Amino acid sequence: MILTVTLNTALDITYRVRALRPHTSHRVTEVTERPGGKGLNVARVLAALGHEVTVTGFTGGATGRTVQEQLTATPGLADALVPVAGPTRRTIAVVDTASGDTTQLNEPGPTVTPAEWSAFQEAYEDLLPSMSAVALCGSLPPGVPVGAYAVLVRLARAAGVPVLLDTSGEPLRRGVAARPDLIKPNADELAELTGSHEPLRATQDARRRGATAVVTSLGADGLLAATPEGRWRATPPAHLHGNPTGAGDSAVAGLLSGLVDRLPWPTRLSHAVALSAATVLAPVAGEFDRAAYEELVGRIAVTGEATAA
Amino acid sequence: MILTVTLNTALDITYRVRALRPHTSHRVTEVTERPGGKGLNVARVLAALGHEVTVTGFTGGATGRTVQEQLTATPGLADALVPVAGPTRRTIAVVDTASGDTTQLNEPGPTVTPAEWSAFQEAYEDLLPSMSAVALCGSLPPGVPVGAYAVLVRLARAAGVPVLLDTSGEPLRRGVAARPDLIKPNADELAELTGSHEPLRATQDARRRGATAVVTSLGADGLLAATPEGRWRATPPAHLHGNPTGAGDSAVAGLLSGLVDRLPWPTRLSHAVALSAATVLAPVAGEFDRAAYEELVGRIAVTGEATAA
Repeated sequence: MILTVTLNTALDITYRVRALRPHTSHRVTEVTERPGGKGLNVARVLAALGHEVTVTGFTGGATGRTVQEQLTATPGLADALVPVAGPTRRTIAVVDTASGDTTQLNEPGPTVTPAEWSAFQEAYEDLLPSMSAVALCGSLPPGVPVGAYAVLVRLARAAGVPVLLDTSGEPLRRGVAARPDLIKPNADELAELTGSHEPLRATQDARRRGATAVVTSLGADGLLAATPEGRWRATPPAHLHGNPTGAGDSAVAGLLSGLVDRLPWPTRLSHAVALSAATVLAPVAGEFDRAAYEELVGRIAVTGEATAA
Repeated sequence: MILTVTLNTALDITYRVRALRPHTSHRVTEVTERPGGKGLNVARVLAALGHEVTVTGFTGGATGRTVQEQLTATPGLADALVPVAGPTRRTIAVVDTASGDTTQLNEPGPTVTPAEWSAFQEAYEDLLPSMSAVALCGSLPPGVPVGAYAVLVRLARAAGVPVLLDTSGEPLRRGVAARPDLIKPNADELAELTGSHEPLRATQDARRRGATAVVTSLGADGLLAATPEGRWRATPPAHLHGNPTGAGDSAVAGLLSGLVDRLPWPTRLSHAVALSAATVLAPVAGEFDRAAYEELVGRIAVTGEATAA
C-alpha cells in the first residue's frame, strides 16, 4: 500500500466557454470536475498502474464530500482524509474553446486549526506502519505550519517508510533538511532551493542539503536524477504537443511505482518520463494515455552512470 | 402557505478577485454562495417577511444537495424540490474588487427527462390544495417543454390557487395565454411579449393577451400596474445606488405578500417598490435592508385610479 498526502485538496472544475470576456455573461458549454491537489493526482495514476493507494490530507464541507465520493468511486483508492471545519477549495479552469487558453480561479481553501493539524499528524502516524512508501505533495493550506513537511518526513523516516517530497518554496527547504528519500523539483523550484540555475549542479546541491535522491523535472526535456546509486538523465523521444497539466504528478507516480517495485534507477526514470509524456498526450488534463505510455516506455533514452560500488 | 416554483434552481457563487484578466491565474479572496434561481430568491424574501413558504422545482447531484441544505436552514422555508438525475447548475459571479464589475459564468444545468417532468407535475398538483398562492419563476431548464408554465398556470387555476408568472420569451407568451392572475415583466420582457416599447400601452396589451393583472417593472422608476381594480404607478422617492440583483424577485415577493394578505393594490405596489429599493440598497446581492424597507414603504408615491365599480 502506498500513501499519498495532499494537505491542500481541491475539487478541480473545468468550464468551457467560447471566449472569456471580462464584465460580460458567459454560458458554460461543458463542465467537468474531479478531485484535485497533487497527491490525489499521483494516487489516481498509481491506482491506474495497479497499485493499492491510500489518500490522506484534509477534507471539509460540501466540496470535500464531493471529492471523497469521487475518490472512493475510483478502484484501488482508499480514502483516509481527515475532516476539517472549513470547506475544501474549488479551482476553476475556464478554457476558451476557440483558442484553448485557460483562465484560472483558485479558492483559498479552509484555514486549518492547530487541533486539526494535530489530528492529522496522529492519523498519519497510524497509517504509516502499513505503507511501503509515502508521497507528500503540493502546497500547504493556511494554518498549517511551514515546517509541516519536515515533521511528516521525520515521522516517515522514524517508521522506516521511504518518503518522497514534492513541494516548493520554504516548505520544500525545511522538508529537505529533514532528509527525505527523494524530492522531485522542477527547474524553478530547484533554483529557488539552491540558488543555482544550472540544473546539473543544482540537483547535486539539493542532495547535499539533505535529500537522499533528487529527480529534477526538465519539462519536455525529461528528468535528471542524482542518487546514491548514480546519476542519469532520461529524455523522451521527441517534443510532445499537448496539455502538460499533471505531467509532474505522473512522473512522481512513476518514481513511486518504481521505488516500491524495487526497479533499478534507469528503469524507474524511463517509466516516469513515459508516464509524464503519456499525460501530456492524453485528451483529458491529468490523465495518461495508456497505449502511448506502453509505446513510449521502451523509447526513453537514459544516459548516465552508476556509482562505483 | 405560499408555493414558489423554480424549475432552473442554482447555487449562486460569488468570487472576489482583484481584477479578472483572461488567461492568467487568480487567487479568489472571498467566496460566498447561496441557493439561487428566481423562485428561491422570492421564497427567501417572503420568509423574511414572516410568510410560510414551500419551494419546489428540481434538484440534483452534489450541488442540489448543497442548495437543499442551505434552504432547509432558512427559517420559514419548506423544501419540496423534486429530484432529477442531472446535477443542479452553479452560477459564478466574479466580482473585481477594484471596480465592482462582474463577470458571469453560468453552467447549463441538468437536462430534465420526460419522466422527471411528469413527476414534477404530480408533486406540484399534490402541493397546490394547501397553498394560498403560487409563483412560477424564471427560465426553463433543458428538457422541460416550452409550454410548461401554461400547464402549471392551468393546474393552479383548476385548484383555485392564485398564480403569478415571472418569466420571459416564449414560456411567458404561452403562459400568459393560460390566464395567470398576475405577471411581472420588466420593460424588455413586456416589449418582447407585446411588440410595443411603450410601457403603458404594452401593460394594457398584456392583459388582453390573458393575464388578469400586469405589473411592469420600470427598474429604478418603480412599477406600473394594470389590474381589473384599476391602474397605478408606484415610484420610489429617489434614484438609489446599489446592486439591482434580486430587486425584481423582491418586487414579486412584495406582490405575493400583498395578494395573500388581501391588501388593496396601491398598498401592494408600495410594499413591492419599497422591498425592491431596499434590495438595491442591501450590501449583499439579493437580500433586502429591513430598516430601509420600513423607512421607504411610507414614502412610495402611488398615482392612478381605481376602476369605477
